[in-house]
Amino acid sequence: MTGEVWLILGGARSGKTRRGLAIAGGYPSRVYIATAEARDAEMQARIAHHRAERGVEWKTVEVPLDLCEALRNADGAGTVVLVDCLTLWLSNLVERERSVEAETALLAETLCALSATVILISNEVGLGIVPDNALARKFRDAQGRLNQAIAALADHVELVVAGLPLKIK
Amino acid sequence: MTGEVWLILGGARSGKTRRGLAIAGGYPSRVYIATAEARDAEMQARIAHHRAERGVEWKTVEVPLDLCEALRNADGAGTVVLVDCLTLWLSNLVERERSVEAETALLAETLCALSATVILISNEVGLGIVPDNALARKFRDAQGRLNQAIAALADHVELVVAGLPLKIK
Amino acid sequence: MTGEVWLILGGARSGKTRRGLAIAGGYPSRVYIATAEARDAEMQARIAHHRAERGVEWKTVEVPLDLCEALRNADGAGTVVLVDCLTLWLSNLVERERSVEAETALLAETLCALSATVILISNEVGLGIVPDNALARKFRDAQGRLNQAIAALADHVELVVAGLPLKIK
Repeated sequence: MTGEVWLILGGARSGKTRRGLAIAGGYPSRVYIATAEARDAEMQARIAHHRAERGVEWKTVEVPLDLCEALRNADGAGTVVLVDCLTLWLSNLVERERSVEAETALLAETLCALSATVILISNEVGLGIVPDNALARKFRDAQGRLNQAIAALADHVELVVAGLPLKIK
Repeated sequence: MTGEVWLILGGARSGKTRRGLAIAGGYPSRVYIATAEARDAEMQARIAHHRAERGVEWKTVEVPLDLCEALRNADGAGTVVLVDCLTLWLSNLVERERSVEAETALLAETLCALSATVILISNEVGLGIVPDNALARKFRDAQGRLNQAIAALADHVELVVAGLPLKIK
Repeated sequence: MTGEVWLILGGARSGKTRRGLAIAGGYPSRVYIATAEARDAEMQARIAHHRAERGVEWKTVEVPLDLCEALRNADGAGTVVLVDCLTLWLSNLVERERSVEAETALLAETLCALSATVILISNEVGLGIVPDNALARKFRDAQGRLNQAIAALADHVELVVAGLPLKIK
């Protein structure tokens, strides 16, 4: 039996991660995949702070790029994996000029083959005015396509607004 | 009997057009009103690609400005007209310094007098930070007012998030 | 008995204020707390226009900063207080370098002790691309945290899209 896939969408500081942690609460085995990179001391402190907040029930893995491999390594029945977040992962892919299309297809394929429950956090970034910056426009399009692809295969999709989940699938 | 009016709102790459095409699927006669202008080769290629994707069941009309006239020309019982999209139409109006207020009132009046089912695609652009640029702020306000005016008269309004429609009316 | 708290969220020109006024419609005593400052003639004209639109049933108070004091002064059973809006209040706090965290905690405490029904209007600003500007990013984070804090204690939370309220709590 394959595990369920949750996609938790929302804006900046909307409470997406907190919602993901709440969903994960009941699982005996919990893996947190952080896609942020600790590039400076401020970021390192922030990551350490969040890790302490989650508590010892969580195993944390830092994975800026190789998300599919990390998902397969964490897999197991009764396990929940929280991916926080797809937006930073996408940003890392774009920066390294990896093919977003190929990586999205691979992620979709990987998700469908896991036994663990996977909760993916992602930003909704397309509801503002068109950005001046061409790279920002390209990123916005890529994020929209990635969210659509994952939403299509997910069992549950929520939009978090002001900390409150709105069920959209 | 007048036809139904659908307003499909969403962000960039949220799957708005795909949702509009799905709603239109059951109608024997289908007209696609494209408000984009094919100003360069890239845009021409993109328009041709989308036209091929829609298939031969669709008649395509390119109408950057005179939307009401195009709607009346396409009208007929059993017909569905997909307007893609109000955001580009608004942008074309603003560029030519046409009165957005007068054009919005005219569109509302036209929509209420048609026999065809009309599906209007529009962007939600007001959920980001206030833009630095005064023109962008003015456009954002105009888009918000246009969306409100059409939503008020529409029979159905949906917000599309990651390809999933959320019914709001 | 304490009064109810409503949080009305939405984007620019989404019809948030109109929705707030509609909710307030049934109350015999109505107080409108405007957090905007009338810094120039254009803003003064706009404020006067909105005041005339609301009608004589409304008492208007202009409060750029001391929201909690204004709420306590307006309090009373059977009274409705409309705060329009938290986003401008937050912006005024940030400009004067007041502690947003302390002011948010004080507001939460004040809201829980009132007899009046309070309707708070606030912008959702985190659903666009990450702003280039560091101050804009900081504001976006502060707005997200403020909205979460008020949503957590509110009895009713709505997201207004194109003039249509979507219930999220």
